[in-house]
Amino acid sequence: MIPSLKPIQAQNSLTTLLEPQLKAINACILEKMKSPVELIPQIAGYLVSLGGKRLRPLLTVACAELCGYEGMRHIQLATSVEFIHTATLLHDDVVDESKLRRGKGTANAIWSNKASVLVGDFLFSRAFELMVEDGSPDVLKILSHASSVIAEGEVMQLASSHDLSLDQETYLKICSAKTARLFSAATEVGAVVARAENKERVALRDFGYALGLAFQLMDDVLDYAADQEKLGKAIGDDFREGKVTLPVILAYQSGSDPVFWKEAFEGGTRDAGALAHAIRLLKESGALIKTKHKAQDYVSDALTCLDLFPDSPLKAALQELAHFSLHRDS
Amino acid sequence: MIPSLKPIQAQNSLTTLLEPQLKAINACILEKMKSPVELIPQIAGYLVSLGGKRLRPLLTVACAELCGYEGMRHIQLATSVEFIHTATLLHDDVVDESKLRRGKGTANAIWSNKASVLVGDFLFSRAFELMVEDGSPDVLKILSHASSVIAEGEVMQLASSHDLSLDQETYLKICSAKTARLFSAATEVGAVVARAENKERVALRDFGYALGLAFQLMDDVLDYAADQEKLGKAIGDDFREGKVTLPVILAYQSGSDPVFWKEAFEGGTRDAGALAHAIRLLKESGALIKTKHKAQDYVSDALTCLDLFPDSPLKAALQELAHFSLHRDS
Repeated sequence: MIPSLKPIQAQNSLTTLLEPQLKAINACILEKMKSPVELIPQIAGYLVSLGGKRLRPLLTVACAELCGYEGMRHIQLATSVEFIHTATLLHDDVVDESKLRRGKGTANAIWSNKASVLVGDFLFSRAFELMVEDGSPDVLKILSHASSVIAEGEVMQLASSHDLSLDQETYLKICSAKTARLFSAATEVGAVVARAENKERVALRDFGYALGLAFQLMDDVLDYAADQEKLGKAIGDDFREGKVTLPVILAYQSGSDPVFWKEAFEGGTRDAGALAHAIRLLKESGALIKTKHKAQDYVSDALTCLDLFPDSPLKAALQELAHFSLHRDS
Repeated sequence: MIPSLKPIQAQNSLTTLLEPQLKAINACILEKMKSPVELIPQIAGYLVSLGGKRLRPLLTVACAELCGYEGMRHIQLATSVEFIHTATLLHDDVVDESKLRRGKGTANAIWSNKASVLVGDFLFSRAFELMVEDGSPDVLKILSHASSVIAEGEVMQLASSHDLSLDQETYLKICSAKTARLFSAATEVGAVVARAENKERVALRDFGYALGLAFQLMDDVLDYAADQEKLGKAIGDDFREGKVTLPVILAYQSGSDPVFWKEAFEGGTRDAGALAHAIRLLKESGALIKTKHKAQDYVSDALTCLDLFPDSPLKAALQELAHFSLHRDS
């Protein structure tokens, strides 16, 4: 049974339960981003100070401990996962020409695209060094493969921007590659470090995968429907960048003012007025609700994956996290 | 004794000697860059078609075979080394805003900076997948560490651009990190795959390192002194980008028209007239010759490292390659 905590507190629950581990992860992040080249800890430290959710490293630690792990290796591997994520964010912001992240300037806006590309490369390499230091061949396979799949997903998204012929299946492939894959790698690595049985490993991998898809789809919804202040970034970023996401695909396919969508995505009229009209259409056509329902389906899948684990506070916190993904506002 | 081939043919000698292996590397490159995401093999294939020197993968293969290796693992590891190099080139061209490479448009000029960043990330991840597949912990350590050192070197160079207070020692640290480290990783990996004794491994690592420094310093010279057509890229790129390289450091420190250098690098006057004046000063002050002498010193170091290996056609080809680095024109 899922505890009756308000969904919004769910991540706090996991964070509270794993507070010492989260502190250890933060310490490891600071330690491992050290470099005699000042700009590296400067930029990396800035990103850390923005206080992301640390969702992926928390998942690694939670899944390891859910499988009974009692050592400390998972802290460094969680850091490696977070570095891959941070490197991806740095490069994403360059590719998307983003100016804001979590309500603060992006690294590329404050320093430069150049610095973001290179510091991203550094964090990415450092992530590999950390997992090589750990030495598990299985972990290396999972994370190196996840990294190339993520890059493939990002290229796929770039190639399909402004393309309204993108269908739901292809779009979900992109989300699977660029987002869900790192979630599933994060959870699977937890199981591997705990030397869990194969069925537990597969269950946690699938849990992460479904959770990642739910998070991505809710991201897509929030980009049109969030409270801008809470979201910490400008609403409508995806729209301005010409990113065709699931809500847009569903609205366009439903026949809701197709001329407008064509003009916006293929003709390039994506100003504030167009964004307001887009939001209206996305609401009226039910596209936002349908996307949320799709995310809900993935949350159900994720929850099912946890069934084989005995009840525990950690399992409950992971279940809450899955629910929370549907109700978060940032 | 070093054979009397003209230095310019030296790399051809290594290429001829290792022709089947080079073909295997090229086949492996094509095979491993495959992806269902079309843009990836398109861009990666374009880079391959530009026909780089394949210097680093050839070094891996040559060093492995110099240590008596007779297997095939070195082909995939050489491919991994080449992928790291290619990823670095893609990101470098974005950072440097370069338009030409080997006489053809750069990937960022033809596709976009975005595509170059992401395809670079893909190649980088794929490089790790290849070495993980090989499975040698030593190789993983060498190449993952080299990658983060390269990124550090690139950031260091970015942070010191336009900075005429850069001294020779710091500049050589940058070259060591951004260039020599991958050369030494390429040669050391060859020794590791051949299970060479430690003294051979250290000798080959140091050979690659010294050779890398020589190549970088000659690159710096060629950027001001090359025949533009043979160089395959615009002469004066470093100057236009405000990159302070050893020739500039030496000319500026020699007191050769310091006001001009200040205006050019810190004030931003780096047009064609300024380039012509810079080239004149670099020649008159002896800065280009001194840089070449420094490169010559590194070539001598490199050659000394090969002393402990018995004479063989492969050793001779590596010696020629070291000499060639001083006489190449591209």
